[in-house]
Amino acid sequence: MNKNTTNWIDEYHKGSRYGLEGQILIDKRSRFQRITIIDSKRYGKALLLNGCWMTAERQEKTYHECLAHPALCSAGDLKRVLIIGGGDGGTARECLRHSALEYLDLVEIDEVVVETSQKYLPTLGGSIWNDQRMNLAIEDGVSWVSKAKNDYYDVVIVDGSDPVGPAKGLFNKEFFENCRRILKTNGVFATQSESPESFHEVHVETVNLLKNIFEYAQPLYGWVPIYPSGWWSWTFGAIDSPRFHNPINSRIQDIASKCEIWSPRWQKGAFEAIPACIERELEK
Amino acid sequence: MNKNTTNWIDEYHKGSRYGLEGQILIDKRSRFQRITIIDSKRYGKALLLNGCWMTAERQEKTYHECLAHPALCSAGDLKRVLIIGGGDGGTARECLRHSALEYLDLVEIDEVVVETSQKYLPTLGGSIWNDQRMNLAIEDGVSWVSKAKNDYYDVVIVDGSDPVGPAKGLFNKEFFENCRRILKTNGVFATQSESPESFHEVHVETVNLLKNIFEYAQPLYGWVPIYPSGWWSWTFGAIDSPRFHNPINSRIQDIASKCEIWSPRWQKGAFEAIPACIERELEK
Repeated sequence: MNKNTTNWIDEYHKGSRYGLEGQILIDKRSRFQRITIIDSKRYGKALLLNGCWMTAERQEKTYHECLAHPALCSAGDLKRVLIIGGGDGGTARECLRHSALEYLDLVEIDEVVVETSQKYLPTLGGSIWNDQRMNLAIEDGVSWVSKAKNDYYDVVIVDGSDPVGPAKGLFNKEFFENCRRILKTNGVFATQSESPESFHEVHVETVNLLKNIFEYAQPLYGWVPIYPSGWWSWTFGAIDSPRFHNPINSRIQDIASKCEIWSPRWQKGAFEAIPACIERELEK
Repeated sequence: MNKNTTNWIDEYHKGSRYGLEGQILIDKRSRFQRITIIDSKRYGKALLLNGCWMTAERQEKTYHECLAHPALCSAGDLKRVLIIGGGDGGTARECLRHSALEYLDLVEIDEVVVETSQKYLPTLGGSIWNDQRMNLAIEDGVSWVSKAKNDYYDVVIVDGSDPVGPAKGLFNKEFFENCRRILKTNGVFATQSESPESFHEVHVETVNLLKNIFEYAQPLYGWVPIYPSGWWSWTFGAIDSPRFHNPINSRIQDIASKCEIWSPRWQKGAFEAIPACIERELEK
């Protein structure tokens, strides 16, 4: 991110950049990272962490719907859901739209992300901060999953940033093994798994790792225009069957009419729309 | 595109911008448009028309494979194929990879685009400029399709830029009606149909127009990281059946092993990965 430009705020990535025209509202450092809020013409207020676009008021459903609903729609139950990261509240909001969900742990390492999002991006979380079903914990997600009980959660969602800085621990074997351990047998695991284009190696490594840890794992491909290349992926894991392919009708009814991107049809396509070069690279 | 930046060349779009780090090699005006070639760190040499990214040496298959192969793999025959636009040669190269193709008309309005691409982007066209099957015509595509015979082409591909400037005539009823008229009954029509995100209205209008003109028409969604939002679409039309859903085995065998994006599986997914908001807006 270049602060010298008065009107353009850009994320730089390997010789490319993506920028939004706007004004910087705040730009501060927390204990963990640099946190910036801008007011953009194109997408309203937007959040950057360490100079990387995270989310924006009018450009966030392409990410949050795609991470949450394939998992929430297909887990056997929705008694207890865990989100690691996601301090802006967007993923929690999509989860809490499911009326079957009874209890949600949102574990965010950086309280400044939560406070800043609550103040500047209130539409991201909406009413979740007062939802009786939600428990916000300001804690290290890696430590949280290492201490959680076996077979405890119906859904475990990892909503972290790129694998540098505070999110580095969210992309390794031990962490993912703990995610599997604390997941119920009929549960579903979900993580953002980077861009198959801009983070090609990380993407392939992450998917292969999850294929080795979970009985069933598969990446799904979609779009996040504010992220490097705009081409993004989320990977889902399950234990008893590839249940993430089978959204449950009552759950679909609960949410589909207000979704901008997600639908059972979209989801089915997004799991198949794997580019040929990635399909060749993935372990079978 | 801002020429004042020495090292970044950006396309500006509605308060967003996408840039590549590099050097401008040429920047000139033809009779029709401004033509720029840069040498970028990320994707090698790249072409801009009127300040908009068109293609780049190492970022072009995500566009050309997705436009060409769903059509070329499913048309009843491949005796005569027509490309309107596509003066960089990339779409023609993908078409000519099909050994069943007998004759290709490439109709580009601007000879400076062809000459510039031949000189600076030789890998885009590869050996096509000497291929005995190819006929290059420097002519207005709108006029070409209005004069062509009924039931003449097995495949008609529209590979134009955004609907302003020289490509404006490639997005209207009369033009598309002529494309249908000159297409054989067992043929397939293909056009780039803009971004469902950055050109939302044009995308929806174009798809609806094609649904009214062709017996069968359907959009397919993919990624072009250098285009606005990175989220792109191509729409296919057919007369006797929705044959674009059924790639022919011998054609698949001819091309699949060297494709970077396209595969029968990817294509099937990309047709289904329609975002919920667009599905609601399209006429049935």
